[in-house]
Amino acid sequence: MARQERALRTRNALIESAAELFDRDGFETASLATISARAGVSNGALHFHFASKAALAEAVREAAAQRLARITDGGAERGDGGALQMLIDTSHALVRGFGQDVVLRAGFDLGDGRGSTGTGADLCTRWRDWVEAAFARAAREGALAPDASARDATLAVVGAVAGFKALGGRDPEWLSPDTLTRFWSLLLPRVAQELTLGGLVAAGTAAGKEALWF
Amino acid sequence: MARQERALRTRNALIESAAELFDRDGFETASLATISARAGVSNGALHFHFASKAALAEAVREAAAQRLARITDGGAERGDGGALQMLIDTSHALVRGFGQDVVLRAGFDLGDGRGSTGTGADLCTRWRDWVEAAFARAAREGALAPDASARDATLAVVGAVAGFKALGGRDPEWLSPDTLTRFWSLLLPRVAQELTLGGLVAAGTAAGKEALWF
Repeated sequence: MARQERALRTRNALIESAAELFDRDGFETASLATISARAGVSNGALHFHFASKAALAEAVREAAAQRLARITDGGAERGDGGALQMLIDTSHALVRGFGQDVVLRAGFDLGDGRGSTGTGADLCTRWRDWVEAAFARAAREGALAPDASARDATLAVVGAVAGFKALGGRDPEWLSPDTLTRFWSLLLPRVAQELTLGGLVAAGTAAGKEALWF
Repeated sequence: MARQERALRTRNALIESAAELFDRDGFETASLATISARAGVSNGALHFHFASKAALAEAVREAAAQRLARITDGGAERGDGGALQMLIDTSHALVRGFGQDVVLRAGFDLGDGRGSTGTGADLCTRWRDWVEAAFARAAREGALAPDASARDATLAVVGAVAGFKALGGRDPEWLSPDTLTRFWSLLLPRVAQELTLGGLVAAGTAAGKEALWF
């Protein structure tokens, strides 16, 4: 294995280990010694890659931002089923990601201001902007009900997904596909234009599940 | 001031101080020394009242549970406007509480399993059960739309309120009355029976604001 590849593996192991400990114990409590031990590397190796815990947190946030982008870009590419179905599929992929991927989960929490030193928008804001753009696109497609506000729908979706993530930390049922499907089943008849509604799959499409990263 | 009254004040000051530090730094990070210093009492006084940090967390959780009960009981007593309006008013009171009352906020987070040693249900579960009972009562009143599921509506309301709380930690706009009003404005035409809908106030009633604790 080339030296560069080894270094990249070590870096990724440290990011994964930091995400696990930030997620379990919180940013403040997690210690660099525990993070390096869990990654199976020396303290010296950790300090070679990351100057501080804040730098490590920033790396977790960046890795999570890439995974979020992969999820949302994947959704956007497959937008031929319409913006609303793309949004449903993407929200299912994100919630699956929250259940399975500790880097994604920890990255969203680091966006809470703790440990974040980056200048880019935090992940919650990026996700919110993306949802808002998807609803705006649905409106342009004529797929939104005439009396439904894209802004209000954005608040509801971003709020509920953030709530399912927070509640899912204690009870995984909140992150189950069934919970999100029930939410969409409730919301869609309110926000989707009548003729569009029949074609929408609240549980997400099979194509969406295959194409999207999680 | 009688000795008993003084002891009660000290106890309450410690609960308030602990809630502030749990909320700011997390349960694990908050130290007993900082909690007693912030409350303006000695370490000895803290240990006279609370044997451990877990005992202090349990007291915060119990104080928060009492405040939640005051909010939900207050709502239930004024139920003459119907179960749906009672639920709207109560959700506004709770979200106001999250913005203003650090004990309520910290108590909900302690329910996350960290630091909680009590046997009673955590606050999220109590709130969820209350919302579910309110929707069931609305259904008995004939106030729910025939195709709206009380269970799905419960998931949406509990999820969104938990999300607004989580997101509000970084951006207080999520805990503003406007955000919750927009959420109810979106949800009500979907869940309320057509004849009931016109009488419902998504922003909460003035009577509700007066009567409810926050």
